[in-house]
Amino acid sequence: MIHGMYSPRITALEVHDVRFPTSRALDGSDAMHPDPDYSAAYAVVRTSAADGHTGHGFAFTIGRGNEVQAAAIEALAPLVVGRPVDETLADPGGLSRELVHDSQLRWLGPEKGVIHMATGAVINAMWDLKAKRTGQPVWQLLAEMSPQDLVDLVDFRYLADVLRPDEALAILEATQPGRAERAARLRSEGYPAYTTTPGWLGYTDDKLRRLCKQAVEQGFGQLKLKIGRDVTEDVRRLTIAREVCGPIMRIAVDANQRFEVDEAIEWIQALAPYDVWWVEEPTSPDDILGYAAIARAVDPIPLAAGEHVPNRVVFKQLLQLGALSYLQLDATRVAGVNENVAILLLAAKFGVPVCPHAGGVGLCELVQHLAMFDYVAVSGSLDRRAVEYVDHLHEHFVDPVVLRDGRYRAPTAAGFSSTMRPESLVRYSYPGGEAWTEGG
Amino acid sequence: MIHGMYSPRITALEVHDVRFPTSRALDGSDAMHPDPDYSAAYAVVRTSAADGHTGHGFAFTIGRGNEVQAAAIEALAPLVVGRPVDETLADPGGLSRELVHDSQLRWLGPEKGVIHMATGAVINAMWDLKAKRTGQPVWQLLAEMSPQDLVDLVDFRYLADVLRPDEALAILEATQPGRAERAARLRSEGYPAYTTTPGWLGYTDDKLRRLCKQAVEQGFGQLKLKIGRDVTEDVRRLTIAREVCGPIMRIAVDANQRFEVDEAIEWIQALAPYDVWWVEEPTSPDDILGYAAIARAVDPIPLAAGEHVPNRVVFKQLLQLGALSYLQLDATRVAGVNENVAILLLAAKFGVPVCPHAGGVGLCELVQHLAMFDYVAVSGSLDRRAVEYVDHLHEHFVDPVVLRDGRYRAPTAAGFSSTMRPESLVRYSYPGGEAWTEGG
Repeated sequence: MIHGMYSPRITALEVHDVRFPTSRALDGSDAMHPDPDYSAAYAVVRTSAADGHTGHGFAFTIGRGNEVQAAAIEALAPLVVGRPVDETLADPGGLSRELVHDSQLRWLGPEKGVIHMATGAVINAMWDLKAKRTGQPVWQLLAEMSPQDLVDLVDFRYLADVLRPDEALAILEATQPGRAERAARLRSEGYPAYTTTPGWLGYTDDKLRRLCKQAVEQGFGQLKLKIGRDVTEDVRRLTIAREVCGPIMRIAVDANQRFEVDEAIEWIQALAPYDVWWVEEPTSPDDILGYAAIARAVDPIPLAAGEHVPNRVVFKQLLQLGALSYLQLDATRVAGVNENVAILLLAAKFGVPVCPHAGGVGLCELVQHLAMFDYVAVSGSLDRRAVEYVDHLHEHFVDPVVLRDGRYRAPTAAGFSSTMRPESLVRYSYPGGEAWTEGG
Repeated sequence: MIHGMYSPRITALEVHDVRFPTSRALDGSDAMHPDPDYSAAYAVVRTSAADGHTGHGFAFTIGRGNEVQAAAIEALAPLVVGRPVDETLADPGGLSRELVHDSQLRWLGPEKGVIHMATGAVINAMWDLKAKRTGQPVWQLLAEMSPQDLVDLVDFRYLADVLRPDEALAILEATQPGRAERAARLRSEGYPAYTTTPGWLGYTDDKLRRLCKQAVEQGFGQLKLKIGRDVTEDVRRLTIAREVCGPIMRIAVDANQRFEVDEAIEWIQALAPYDVWWVEEPTSPDDILGYAAIARAVDPIPLAAGEHVPNRVVFKQLLQLGALSYLQLDATRVAGVNENVAILLLAAKFGVPVCPHAGGVGLCELVQHLAMFDYVAVSGSLDRRAVEYVDHLHEHFVDPVVLRDGRYRAPTAAGFSSTMRPESLVRYSYPGGEAWTEGG
């Protein structure tokens, strides 16, 4: 194995606990999370390759416990450090299966919560590294892979009753012909975004009004309001938003898991006259049957969920029951790009549009790649699709998202847009960084 | 608040990473976990009270990642340390709700995986402390609480469509009359156990035969074999066990999440002629619809699950669909005693017997209390009920389980039987303890 001895290796998995004191301004306040401090358990993969590239990934959390998330990423270091770079990056499906199904670590999930998000952070960091080495943004790297290579990324375990590899291949082959035109259209027109910036519960009516007006001016076709504290308040805020935005704007609402099943049905029915585009997370993200019951009862009002759906197996069931009209994948909740490719394929199989969850810190940066890949190579459609956008914390990234006329511009820089500015890593390091020691 | 200043406080939440090198003997090997090192992220609650009692709880893991679990328990310390002891122990329902729904930590689950198990460890430690202070074993402490006080322990969030507080109260009131006789019967006869000791995949046929014989001699009425590596091998092992044990022994099998849905149906049907008492964990513990499909297809062969079911919301759905014939709650997977009271009530509502998961390290010690409480005060029945028993690692506990004639003797010592011997905490401390530095 002379070759192996000299081939570049992964030399380190470096972990940072980075937190932004967002709770000070009530940014991000919703019915269940009144005071989040947007945070990232941030991973950097280093190698001995001469190119000097590093791979960056992270798990998003909302403050307390980010150190637990960081510890979970560290627990994966022995599974990654020492691997040959070229071979590892050549088989991301194999890497993903090894990390997800580690016979001892899986007990901590299995495939859910802290350990699963940590796996996602590491897998996403490897995709960032792979894309940097090929000189492409991740969306394009994925969109240029052959259908068979894409199928090989996917862990089909527990999906066989709904999606087999041959079906996945057929979905990808059906979309293959139009890839080049769609990529070109994406580069010229961008991908639709919707904004949650106006919608936080902690904001005053004046601030809501001002931000709604801004959303219209910025060209957004959809916005989202948080609901669930008080139904009268929700109606008032919906009315304000509709007044300011006019009849064309799509207005979605988000309950952030606030309701019991029957309560959700009543609450949503009370909002029915106000022309709601979708209702997001009406109840526990684990309550698949609850979602189905709510969806049936409030039909035709569509439900959306995904940011807290732990893995492809739960998405599978939500789709099997027809409980979701919009699937909101999250870049850092599941086991990274690979599991999200599985989720995109499941959504395509059921004809459900994917409208990724974003916001937080860095989530917009990541999910834009997945949505664009979906458009070019999986669903082939922009119909009823939009990626969430929140105007927070983008300045901390080397390659931040670019919005124009309410649309995400297609990233052109190599990688996953996941690299945080080194000075931000230092300043927002918790608890020692200046942002925390100086109180701002 | 002069009173408050002098009232005893919780002064520390101490955390230990304890691991036993069980993989060296292939104890605990199954289809998904070939080489576990049984471990505990172990919590000790200390107070300033003059009685000197400490509360002990833990989350069970199988080795790698136990440090992540320990970090999660540490993350809960700020929510616990400094609290007044008396008030906190007087309202365990309130404490449980505060810990489970912490608005930032919940993002790490919600209510699943590492953070949820950590919450369980702390809540169980508080129950151990509470029971030590009242001088009772936990099963008895619970079994002597009024129906209303038991209802107040439960977090009914996301259960309203299936179990309301008034229904829970009615279940408990209906069972109240016979409590004293059942407690007396428990003290004299113990609670039925079943043994998994013979069943690990890593054992030879000779060892299987010897351990089956031993199980009969020890008076067990039920045993369990691991399956799922090879159906011919499973049939051979089932045949051996039946040969050795005779026709009366209940023989359950456990697939440890090994199968796809359709594969599970075929595999189970192949085992149908061999008189299987239940089939445990045929597929992903998240696949509620998959369980329901398997249950329908293999009817009347009963399914069992629970050790990886993350919370009461998932149990609720498995029960709603009639997918489980046996509910195997786990003492350290969910948020401790409080959530397990909810799960016992759900099972009672659906008339499904609870046969707790145990084994590992310390799980037998904990779950015996929950099963005995269920018998005395919730279900009121021993019919088709048995607590798992594995003959491993009990020697590390101050108040280990006592088996006689295949039955758990009712614990009499105060507490939750969760206190590990101090010398074991030192010797098996990872990575510095002698068990690890000396290789045995």
